This record gives sequence, C-alpha cells and structure tokens, in this order.
Amino acid sequence: MAKFQVNILGCGSATPSARHQPSCQVVDFRDKLFMIDCGEGAQSWFRRMGLKFSRLGHIFISHLHGDHVFGLPGLLSTMSLHDVQGTVTIHIFKEGAELLKSWMDFFNRQSSFEIIYDIIEPGERRVIYEDSGLTVETFPLYHRIPCTGFIFREKPKARHLRGDMVKFLGIPVSQLQAIKNGADYVKPDGTVVPNDRLTTPADPSVSYAYCSDTMYDKRVARDVAGVDTIYHEATYHSSLEATARERGHSTSLQAAVTARDAGASRLIIGHFSKRYVQGEQPLLEEAVAVFPSTVLANEGLRIDLE
Amino acid sequence: MAKFQVNILGCGSATPSARHQPSCQVVDFRDKLFMIDCGEGAQSWFRRMGLKFSRLGHIFISHLHGDHVFGLPGLLSTMSLHDVQGTVTIHIFKEGAELLKSWMDFFNRQSSFEIIYDIIEPGERRVIYEDSGLTVETFPLYHRIPCTGFIFREKPKARHLRGDMVKFLGIPVSQLQAIKNGADYVKPDGTVVPNDRLTTPADPSVSYAYCSDTMYDKRVARDVAGVDTIYHEATYHSSLEATARERGHSTSLQAAVTARDAGASRLIIGHFSKRYVQGEQPLLEEAVAVFPSTVLANEGLRIDLE
Repeated sequence: MAKFQVNILGCGSATPSARHQPSCQVVDFRDKLFMIDCGEGAQSWFRRMGLKFSRLGHIFISHLHGDHVFGLPGLLSTMSLHDVQGTVTIHIFKEGAELLKSWMDFFNRQSSFEIIYDIIEPGERRVIYEDSGLTVETFPLYHRIPCTGFIFREKPKARHLRGDMVKFLGIPVSQLQAIKNGADYVKPDGTVVPNDRLTTPADPSVSYAYCSDTMYDKRVARDVAGVDTIYHEATYHSSLEATARERGHSTSLQAAVTARDAGASRLIIGHFSKRYVQGEQPLLEEAVAVFPSTVLANEGLRIDLE
Repeated sequence: MAKFQVNILGCGSATPSARHQPSCQVVDFRDKLFMIDCGEGAQSWFRRMGLKFSRLGHIFISHLHGDHVFGLPGLLSTMSLHDVQGTVTIHIFKEGAELLKSWMDFFNRQSSFEIIYDIIEPGERRVIYEDSGLTVETFPLYHRIPCTGFIFREKPKARHLRGDMVKFLGIPVSQLQAIKNGADYVKPDGTVVPNDRLTTPADPSVSYAYCSDTMYDKRVARDVAGVDTIYHEATYHSSLEATARERGHSTSLQAAVTARDAGASRLIIGHFSKRYVQGEQPLLEEAVAVFPSTVLANEGLRIDLE
C-alpha cells in the first residue's frame, strides 16, 4: 500500500511544556514530506522521528502565532547546514512571509536551497499544492487572527486489472494504463469489452484535514465533509467552553461534534492546553462519547491514513 | 555565601543534536538572572533547570549566528504569557536588535513587559551593565562575523566587622557601614582606631568570562587576564586545528592555552561540534594536559563561581 501517514511532532498550545511541544506535524505522502506548522523545536523532533530533511519540500503555516512559526528559522538553517538542495515552498500569510524572509536573508544568506513563498490570502479556498497523486487545499478557520486549515486529498487511484482477463483477451500492454483509468477494451474484431469486466474497483482515495487553531463553527464541518481523518484542535475540556470561545479555541466535545457532522472516519485531537498536567484523558472521554473513533495526539505518534 | 552561579542550558554548536542544545547559559548573581546567548529551545531548558522568568532582566547576545539567537522569540513570548513585568534589556548588535524587534512587534505586540535594546558596537569595550554588586563588560572576540565576549565581575565586597572590637569600643551602628567599606573609627576623644583593627579582609571578588565563538587569538587571554572562571568555546579537538581556524573556532587545546595565559583558576569548555558523538572526553584530555582545572560543559550543569 502506498504510504500516506501523519507524524505528530508537537501537539501542545502556546508554550512548550514538560508534556508537549508547540504545533508541528509532518504528512508523509509516498515519501514526500509536507510539514504543517512549525513551532519551536520542530527540527529536533523531525530528526528524532527519523524524517529526512531532503524529502521536505513544502511547509504550510496555518496562522501567525508564535507557537506555530518560531521553529522555522532553526529548521531552515539546519536544512541548509545539511546541504539540502532544490526548493522549499512555504505557504503562509503575507506578513509571515515578510518577517521570515527578513530573518532568512540575514541568518541563512548562503542557503543551500531556494525558499519559495506562496502567499495564502485570509479566507481563501484554493488548491495550493498538486502533484500526480495529491492535492492540498486551504479553507478558512475561525481564530482570533486569520487562520487557514489544510485538506490533503489523494487523487483517484487506478482500477485493478484482472490478470485473467488481460491474458484471456491478449490485451496489448500499450492499452493497460487506459484500462486501469476506466477505458473499455475494443477487440480487433470491433467487439467492446466493458471496463468492469476487465478491472476491479480502485482502492478508495484517502483524505486528511488539519483544523487548528479554530473556535467551534458549523462551517468547519461543512468544509471538511467527507474527509477520512480530521486533526482538530481541542485546547480545552467543555467545562471551559466560554474560555475556549473567548480565545478562539475549541473544546474536545466541539472537535468531536465537527468530526461527527463532517462524517469523518477518525478524529485526532491535539493543541492541548498545558493545564492538563495529569494527561488529556478527560478530553478524550468527552470526545469519544460523541465520536468514538477519536485518538489523542502525542509527540512521536505516527498514524497511517490509508 | 552570596550566590554567583552559571547554569549551562546549551553547549552544542550550529544545530541541536541528540547530545547538545545550541548555545545558552544563565548567570545567577544573587538571584538576578543574566542570560548569555539564546539558541533554539533555551526557554525549555530554562524551565527545566528551575529558573524563574521573573528574575531574568538582561540577555546578552555574543553574535548574530542563528544558534545563538533563534530561541529569543519563543523565550520572550513565553515570558509575556507568564505575565512577566518590568523590563528586559537585550544587549545585542544593531542588526540583531532590528530583526528581533520586527518579530516581537508582530508576534508579541501585547507584551506584558517592555523590551529595551542596548546596542553593542562591534569591537567595543564597555561596561554594559552595573548594579551595586556586579558589572558586565564587553570585549572583542575573533569569529567569522563580529562577536563579543562578556566579563561578569563582582564588585569589591565589604570587609568583615570584628564583633568583639565593635562591642569593646561601643561603635555606633550608624558608622558600621563606613567601617565595612574601609573607614577608620574616630573615638569620641579623638583617638583614631585604624580599620585593620576593626575588620578582617573582605572575601575575594569573583569574576567570570564568556568567550564564544572565537578562534584562538592571544588578545583574548590578555582581555580576560585575572578572571577566575572562563567559559571558552572548544568546538574541535586540535587534530582539526585548521578547520577550527577556517571556521573561526577554537580547539580545546587552544581554549586551555588561553585559560593558562590568562591566569584563570578554572576553565569550562563548550560549543562542541556534533561530530563528537561518543562524547567530548578527547577534548577534555588535551585541555587538561595544559590546564588541569578544566571541566566539560553539559546541559543542566550548574557551577558555583564563588
């Protein structure tokens, strides 16, 4: 099975704590790495999880709070010291690009690779990355300052050829790709063999959404409807719902409601307040009551999305 | 005894490694904290060592390489989230102040405390901090870019009163401070009692010098002559002396020669290259051969300077 995983490098909020690092995760899609947010210390966890700098080509920043960006200067400088080649594209709001560029132009002026800035507009919905197998889209979140979520969607996959039929009909190799993509086969005598006799259905395409930071808003569930796995912030337990709203954050219950309303198969909750020094079990419990397939994020956790 | 300690928060070079953090240390002088350099992750080690943000009033930055400054945005933001009051003065070269200010004005615009920038000029020798018990001076180091060292000097201390003489002579309380500072006592009948009959000598004043990053240069030993404890970078073993010079760094042997020539009592070596994955014992061995009172820096190490 083709690799599609998410690695959790940091799932705390605001400040590093004894329990958690600030926000950072890395999606591994068939050995291409995509970082989402980059809190202080991200480079250390990146290496600790055995990820390779040379495979990191895109970094997506959800919003311009320090706990989501302060790891960038160190990460990029270390990548240059490791002689990473090519380009690294940073998808980020305009002010973030300007601030980061001023530091990188000074501290990393002999960078081994080129940094490309892709400016995200607040509120924008756009495919900001595409290759032969994957797209990444932005959609708005609802925080104290402009904030964007990201949806990673595997493209539709090829159907599986039925080897017996290919052999029986003697289909030329040159036609196999078209048939995998859904074409019928026309025999030399003009007879049409419909595709569903030649193939079995493709594996389902998988999707992943990152929703952090955001307060609860019905529009989030609508925007991530049909996504398989959702990472959603759950800064507080619902006993602190008013605090959550005031600070532009969600409770774990609200995260579960969003996952349920979006029809997701799985929910990962994170961005935990440091107040839960005894662990986030209370947050998990109230989420599971609404959406059973919920897991707690944790540094070092690697989840298969397929 | 009054507290005068140095806490090692990071003593690696260039990038965080499994063994070491980037440069950072904290001098604790009678519960006032003074940070020297601030590599990424400094705030985490600061808390891990049980230091208090509210006592940190001054940060001294030796030079503008990322491994000495990338921890500043996170540290200052966290201090604000901890509602630290008053002022924090950052002693730094001009370009560093400008770069840091642009980030702090954006990411920490509602800071709980005021940041004051004290601009150090390259090559400058100046007392950049002074209170009733301590001075901090700059002096030039010799790196690839402008770099400054720092000397912490305890001011001369008061002499110890001889309780028996104070009582015997009936010296009024109002005169005791002057006597501790060296004054003679004039009896009501005009007789002068010389100070050395009233007091015993003050404890010696202690000093500490931070020399990182720098290549070997005789002028360093001259500038730190008479300092008690020297922290000196020792990025490489002397088998890599040419590399050290080329990159503006020192070998452990050169650090020891500087400490010996300066007449120091103790040398702490640090800023280790990450190549010494098996430990820095080889660096220690060659230093000790020249200067026996050498210790290896390490994260979490706290050294009494008195």
